[in-house]
Parts: sequence; C-alpha cells; structure tokens
Amino acid sequence: MTVAEMARLLEQAGPTLVVAHEDPDPDSIGSILAARWVLRRVRPGLPVEAASPDPPPLSCRFLSGSGEVLGPDEALARGPWQTLWVVDCEPSRIGRLKPLVETAERLLNLDHHATNTTPSGHPAEARLIDPSAAATGLLIHRFIRHWGLRLDAEVATFLYAALMGDTGSFRYSNTSAEALAVAREALLAGARPDEVAHNLYERRTFDEMQLLGRALSVLARSDDGRIAWIALPHGWIAGDDPRARADATDGFVNYPRMVEGVEVALLFREVEPGAVRVSLRSQSSVDVSRIAAAFQGGGHPRAAGCTVRRPLGQAVDEVVRAVQAALGQGARVGG
Amino acid sequence: MTVAEMARLLEQAGPTLVVAHEDPDPDSIGSILAARWVLRRVRPGLPVEAASPDPPPLSCRFLSGSGEVLGPDEALARGPWQTLWVVDCEPSRIGRLKPLVETAERLLNLDHHATNTTPSGHPAEARLIDPSAAATGLLIHRFIRHWGLRLDAEVATFLYAALMGDTGSFRYSNTSAEALAVAREALLAGARPDEVAHNLYERRTFDEMQLLGRALSVLARSDDGRIAWIALPHGWIAGDDPRARADATDGFVNYPRMVEGVEVALLFREVEPGAVRVSLRSQSSVDVSRIAAAFQGGGHPRAAGCTVRRPLGQAVDEVVRAVQAALGQGARVGG
Repeated sequence: MTVAEMARLLEQAGPTLVVAHEDPDPDSIGSILAARWVLRRVRPGLPVEAASPDPPPLSCRFLSGSGEVLGPDEALARGPWQTLWVVDCEPSRIGRLKPLVETAERLLNLDHHATNTTPSGHPAEARLIDPSAAATGLLIHRFIRHWGLRLDAEVATFLYAALMGDTGSFRYSNTSAEALAVAREALLAGARPDEVAHNLYERRTFDEMQLLGRALSVLARSDDGRIAWIALPHGWIAGDDPRARADATDGFVNYPRMVEGVEVALLFREVEPGAVRVSLRSQSSVDVSRIAAAFQGGGHPRAAGCTVRRPLGQAVDEVVRAVQAALGQGARVGG
Repeated sequence: MTVAEMARLLEQAGPTLVVAHEDPDPDSIGSILAARWVLRRVRPGLPVEAASPDPPPLSCRFLSGSGEVLGPDEALARGPWQTLWVVDCEPSRIGRLKPLVETAERLLNLDHHATNTTPSGHPAEARLIDPSAAATGLLIHRFIRHWGLRLDAEVATFLYAALMGDTGSFRYSNTSAEALAVAREALLAGARPDEVAHNLYERRTFDEMQLLGRALSVLARSDDGRIAWIALPHGWIAGDDPRARADATDGFVNYPRMVEGVEVALLFREVEPGAVRVSLRSQSSVDVSRIAAAFQGGGHPRAAGCTVRRPLGQAVDEVVRAVQAALGQGARVGG
C-alpha cells in the first residue's frame, strides 16, 4: 500500500490510537508522537491518542507530550478505538495493548522492519512496510509531506530523535540520503541535535557508569576474536523497576561491537534467574535476526534480540555456538 | 576574504603544500586530503602535496591516500613550497612544519576556529576564517562547489569523516544545515557512514576496552555531583609509543561527561611520573579554557587541556579545586 492510500484511510478514520512496540526506543516513541501530531492537524476534532505498552524510556521523556502517552490500562479503558495505527512493529509486539487489535474496526500497520512480513489476520488490515527506510520516523515524515504540513520545532525534534536513534547517530549502514535530508529539514525547523543527543546518550546515572565498568571487566571473546560478549548476572543490575533496569544497560552491546575484528557482538542480561535477554549485533554478512529467530526472537539482519530460558552460562554457550555456526557457514558460502 | 578570492590565489599558485595542525584528527586529515584532491583537479600538473606534523591517527588511516601524507622531514626536504595552505588551524600550530611558513612566497590560511583571530605576520598572507562552519571540511567543500567539481567516493569519504569528527557524529550544537546537506551529498557520491564510523569509533583493541572498564572503576565525583573525573595512573596505560598511548584513552573524558548532572568532566592521564595531562569538558557556562590557561594550557570554552607537573593525586586536587571555584563563581554570577 502507498502513503497516499494509507493517508486516505486515515482521512476517513474514526477515533484513532497510535501504538508501537514493547520496550520502546527513540524511533518508536518519536514515531507515535509524530503520528499523533500529524493526525491532530489533519483531523482536527477527531479523538487521537498515542499509547505504549511500556512507559517511554528516560531518553525520550524530554520529547514534548511524551507524558501524555497512554499506558495500557488507560488506552484500554478509553477504547475501543475505531482505528488502531500500529507503527514500528507488527501488531503481535504491542504487549498489553493487544486486546485493542480485535476491537478495532480498522488496523493500519506502518513499519520498516524487514521481518514484518505476515499480516496479522485482522479482517480490515492495511499494511505499508518499507525496509529501505532507516527509521519509522521517516515513514511518518512521508505522511507529513503527503499532506503538505510544515514542520514545527516539536515534531522536528520527534523526527530527529527517531532518526538519531535508529541510525546510531548517522553511523549505521542504513543511514540514507532521505535520513540526512529529513534531519536537515528538522534542524531548520528547530530540532537541536545537541539536545537530542544529550537525552539519548548522556543521561547516565553514576551507578550505571560504574555498572558499565563492571560489565567491561567481564568482556569476553571467542578464540578467533570474531565474537565478543558481555554477560550480566541478575544480581548486578539493581532495582525492581524493569524499565529502569533496561535503561541501565541500554547500549552496552555497543562495547563488544567496538573491538577491532569483532563481527558479532552480544549482550546477555539475566533479567530474572533462568531468563536471559540477548541482544545481537552484526558487523559482517551474518544475519543475526535468523539466529534470534532460532531462539524465538527477531529483529533486523544487523540488530536483533531474543530471550533464552536457561541459566546465564548455558545461554551464553548456546547462543555463542549458534553464532559460531553462522560465521562458519558464512565463511563456507563466501569461500 | 571570500572563497572566490582565495580560489583565485590558488589558481595562480606555484607548487603548493597543504598542512594542518599537530595531533591531527579526522577533520584536519580529511581536510588536507580533500584540499589535495581539489587542487590536483583544478591545477593538473602542478606539484601539490599534503603534509602533517604528526602521522595521521589510526582512525584516519583508512582514508585513501592518507599513506602519502608527507611527514615533516620529507615536506621540508622537498621544499621550499611557493604556496603554503594552512587549514584547520593558525600557522603557529603546525609544529615541525613551521620553517615552511618563512620560505613560502604565499601563505593561505583557511580555518573555522574562533580562536584564530591574529594574522601570522607573513608578508603575503590571505585568511578565510569562518567560525560558523561546523568543520574545516565544509570550507573545502565550498571550494569544490566554487569550481564546480563533482564529488567522487574518495573525496566524499574525506568530507564525511571530517564532518563526523567535528560534529561528534551530528550530535554537537555546531551541527548545521550545511553539514547535513554536505553529508547527504557525500553519501550520494559514495561515502559509507558505517565505514567512516567504524574507523572513527570502533577500532578499539580488546585491551583498550578492558582499560576503559578499569578507568570506570575509579570514576569519581564531587559531593554536589557537578564535577566528575577519571584519573589514570602511569602504569595503567601500556606501551611505549606516545601516539598509541594517546589513542588508547582517546574519548575516555566522554564517560564522566555522560553522567546526568555533571557540568564539568575531567580526565587525568599520568603521562609520565609527575606529569599529568588533563582534558577538561564543560556542559555548562563554565569556560574550561580559562581553567586550562591557569595551568598553562588552552582550548575552547567547552573543551580544553593542560599538563600539570605534579603527582597524580595532587594534580586531581588542584584542578578539581579550580573547577569548583569556577562553578562557584558561575553560581554567584548567575544567582
């Protein structure tokens, strides 16, 4: 489906809720806020809200209106919503908001994840999936352009945060001419790169920096140096709030990734005894979304995740072995 | 002087050497390589070389032709150069290349540092200083545009590296619409953001990452949380090569800077027993170049450095006290 076609459905929509995935990030939060901004302008008077299964992370709380993103309880209580606009993921990844899929008369799905290939089965589902887009924020920007809206500083900041988040600050291979053009447009409209970067990257607590030091003390690698990882035992991450615990180690997977020669970097977080959250990053031709899928996870070819229900040491062994097998296969295919 | 005026001087120049500052970085190396690329196209047949007082850092060695940048001995032996084009600094900062200033018939100075305010006194000096430019690479790009040259992947990569280096990956407040427009143009011409970022940020050795972990284990802060620092004893940094030793801890000052609430971040490196190299970063109105100047150092208001000839503990005490005094004064002025 094209932007124009989905735009027409939005022009005809009843009360609309924009939602994104669990464990939100700057692209998902930036995108739901930008989508809400757009719809409130195109459909004045129509009830339009944004909701998230988990609260916005600390990195996104500076975004204007992030405090009015509905949690699951409120989103369900204020439903049913005639149209559910699921952005940056498939409808199965919206956690506690999932009951709203069934009660919605119309389901719209806008995403840039290549793994989003299967319709949910909703009878009135419309899909626009473009894996060439560096961020879902760029897809929202295409609607802004379609409707001829002029960016203000608020939505410009949503878009810059979305872009900065999903391109790793314009460093990843997905960084596109469109991403840089929209970043420029956002800057001219009032987005402040230093403000966005400060919130995305420089709001660590002192304890988190000490935890990073401790994490680096257990940095490990395979004999050939092609795989490096950090494994964090449950007891190392303090606090009861799962969101704060996730924030505390956000980005740690980048450290094994920085080591010269590493092709696959892994972060293992024992989120509860016997359950290990794994983040995978690839710097080579290895498609880590396939490895994650083998453990019932998913993601992009170069950035994926899964949860392994094993003791920490065993989870490390199994995932590292799977990565080694994938690297070996890659070598065979390539050679 | 305008770009057109300096371009006219370059069109009339004899054998030309492009040089930049000591302790080179991606903007200075990217700029001399891009300037050499430009002149060789505009002045085919004219002897044109690039030179650097210190070898290009590891982060820049992937840049095409960085291996042919002349060192001081070779640059002096092949001189005198009719025109010396000093980019990204004032002529006094070119270290062992300084004798070439006197022997040059024509001195051109192209820079974006606001501190570059005073002509060198050379009788035929032409200056173009634009502190609004995010990187000197952008100034070179203005010459490319002036002469109507078309970017190829080689020069596009020089420019992307220069921009990424001096804008901190499009995060600093100097990130401009021009920077993002040129980054986009460079990407379309074949620059690969992931390749540039990999070389600028992800070529750490395993030992360096472990050193970072150890450094974070001694992260300290003032009682009020406004100052944070890391102090590295001499014995912690292995190796004899000063360049490699500097590379190993490059960027460590960013870690105390990332802590929420920190206004001034410090990195102390005991480069030899009794000599401590101090890096200062400000996130507030405190001008750290003034503090550095009090210890015979210098720099920018938000990024400065100095060397303190004291034992490590004493150097920490003295500099932290000076920062506290500056913060106190700021508070008094502000309140």
